[in-house]
Amino acid sequence: MEEKLDLLKIREQISSLDNQLLGLAAKRRELTMNVAKSKAHIIRPVRDQQREQELLVKLIQQGKALGLDAHYVTRLFQLIIEDSVLNQQAFLQELKNPNTKTPTVSVAFLGDKGSYSYLASYRYFSRRAEEIIEYGCASFNDILNQVESGNVDYGMLPIENTSSGSINEVYDLLQHTNLSIVGELSQPIEHCLLSAGNTSLDAIDTIYAHAQPVQQCSNFLNKQSDIRIEYCESSADAMQMVEKLTQPNVAVIGSEEGGQLYGLQALQKGIANQEENHSRFILVARKPVDVAEQIPAKTTLILATGQAPGALVDCLVVLKQYDINMTKLESRPIQGRPWEEMFYIDLEANLKSIAMQECLTKLTELTRFIKVLGCYPSEQVNPTSVPFAALHNE
Amino acid sequence: MEEKLDLLKIREQISSLDNQLLGLAAKRRELTMNVAKSKAHIIRPVRDQQREQELLVKLIQQGKALGLDAHYVTRLFQLIIEDSVLNQQAFLQELKNPNTKTPTVSVAFLGDKGSYSYLASYRYFSRRAEEIIEYGCASFNDILNQVESGNVDYGMLPIENTSSGSINEVYDLLQHTNLSIVGELSQPIEHCLLSAGNTSLDAIDTIYAHAQPVQQCSNFLNKQSDIRIEYCESSADAMQMVEKLTQPNVAVIGSEEGGQLYGLQALQKGIANQEENHSRFILVARKPVDVAEQIPAKTTLILATGQAPGALVDCLVVLKQYDINMTKLESRPIQGRPWEEMFYIDLEANLKSIAMQECLTKLTELTRFIKVLGCYPSEQVNPTSVPFAALHNE
Repeated sequence: MEEKLDLLKIREQISSLDNQLLGLAAKRRELTMNVAKSKAHIIRPVRDQQREQELLVKLIQQGKALGLDAHYVTRLFQLIIEDSVLNQQAFLQELKNPNTKTPTVSVAFLGDKGSYSYLASYRYFSRRAEEIIEYGCASFNDILNQVESGNVDYGMLPIENTSSGSINEVYDLLQHTNLSIVGELSQPIEHCLLSAGNTSLDAIDTIYAHAQPVQQCSNFLNKQSDIRIEYCESSADAMQMVEKLTQPNVAVIGSEEGGQLYGLQALQKGIANQEENHSRFILVARKPVDVAEQIPAKTTLILATGQAPGALVDCLVVLKQYDINMTKLESRPIQGRPWEEMFYIDLEANLKSIAMQECLTKLTELTRFIKVLGCYPSEQVNPTSVPFAALHNE
Repeated sequence: MEEKLDLLKIREQISSLDNQLLGLAAKRRELTMNVAKSKAHIIRPVRDQQREQELLVKLIQQGKALGLDAHYVTRLFQLIIEDSVLNQQAFLQELKNPNTKTPTVSVAFLGDKGSYSYLASYRYFSRRAEEIIEYGCASFNDILNQVESGNVDYGMLPIENTSSGSINEVYDLLQHTNLSIVGELSQPIEHCLLSAGNTSLDAIDTIYAHAQPVQQCSNFLNKQSDIRIEYCESSADAMQMVEKLTQPNVAVIGSEEGGQLYGLQALQKGIANQEENHSRFILVARKPVDVAEQIPAKTTLILATGQAPGALVDCLVVLKQYDINMTKLESRPIQGRPWEEMFYIDLEANLKSIAMQECLTKLTELTRFIKVLGCYPSEQVNPTSVPFAALHNE
């Protein structure tokens, strides 16, 4: 009994300490926003990784004196720095595009409530808008039409997946659209086996699922004997079905977060063949955005070089001359021209930079067709690493 | 000028705030250790994920009131909870095995300073020992011999890799050893292209590397034209070579952390085909450990069933009857018995539990040969998830 009282008391102390931690995190965010404001008129990158590293090394030493291990302190402050960087970037980006921030945004995405595209939309706008008006669509084409017609503000499109590769259909549709890419997002995908109500894996004899997750979870599914797969149009459809049936013998493959919207629980997590699975999404809108000079930008181009041999190589040489890094190169056939290819290229560059402008001029001379699909802030915040010696007391 | 002064002032404020954050993190760790002490004589799991979820939901709400977004608060406290769980587990484990904690440990591992096994050894003991005496070995067999002969306390062995699969040689050696598995570790593997001094990717014409990283980075390497690969016995050897040469045209594939030990810098990070890459390591010692009842344990068995058809299935049915989850099943041929297989099985169970003991008795009846390789604390701390509604204001 006394032990129990002690435990309650300690837990209260932890609770009040957690509140203080939150207060400090909020205060820290405010201070870094002041840093962003002071940088608003100086064209210098938001991040200074050398300064970050010095900061981390100092914090590791201070942490050690307090009995905290170096790995923990590193991960804690890498997370805090990431938050700070993303918020500073969002602030500078708003300053650059003053009329794009609205409390309510309408977004078209593939599938229904709970789909991975739905979750990506909520994640992307969690930092940027207060309310989302949802437009679940049946196809990628439908998403683009909704945005083009002015029915919705934005369209969220998956563009590649670490385990199943590029999504060719989206690339092909982008050839014919006048929309601009205005943002990107990388979203972790964790397939789980979900069920309605209490049951166990042994009791399951039917699994509802979309074809893609079935393929990505083949190793797990092959180990389950006597299980029937019912293919559905989307994961959201499958989840709806299992919610409606509420039987102990049926389950669905989907994300835990999505399943919660249908009252489903995870029977087993992480059932995909490949443990780590991410999808990259792009956000499209009718009008392009400008990217603030202080933050890392990506520019996406499509180009066609015609049939001259080596023409693509010439283009890549130009990029190299201007020291512009290419993060992605994808080729797709051109409809109606069976021997030609269209190339999609993601570059680490701001479209408005002098280098990129000069580069574009040269590329235009070398290509039969070239189009800028958009320039947008890069969302990837690589953690700053710490020297081994700082981690291990050497 | 004024702007610069302002910036300095804000940075000082951030610095003092970071100190407060560290102080709170250390205080929180102390309090959770008091929780662990109060739990020491109660056989109840360290983690209560329902309580953790309630805590997270409350913190998200409090964070929102302070202007912090839900995803950030979730990730911040998932990390804090993970640290708390691992420290409580380590404390209870020490209490259970009072004579295993020493300030200095000697560890045998594959390769030299900077190898992935070397980094895993440091990572594992960062929470557990003050000093490591290093024994770099040329082979897995050598590692086992060093431990068996009493020359070193521990051996660190890689057992599987998310991209290249199980390491069969280690499984085969474990058939013939009397050592016990006493711990496990999952270590992220990030291949980088490293060089000595300032150079650029264009200038590189020779890459020194071990065969496995070359295979895992084939996509990147195929894109580099006119690069010659010089194969080395280990990544550490390759790094040593590049350090010694210090030429702008040579580079090596290795981890950034390992490279720092040779004064090498990352020219390009994340060059592996598969973006996320983890290796699982096991730690072996001469004497088995007991795992405290309050913390999640794994038990590893090897068994041979003979040639009776369905014998393995009978064993798996027994595990199912006792509700013991199997996290890994690997079969390997038995030397000298060409038609028989040996099975390696990882179970989520404490060897000393009644269920596992009864299960072992039944398995012994069903098998021709059975051996417990060890029972050890599970290092995997799955983050507690948060309902979608709590994340998104619904």
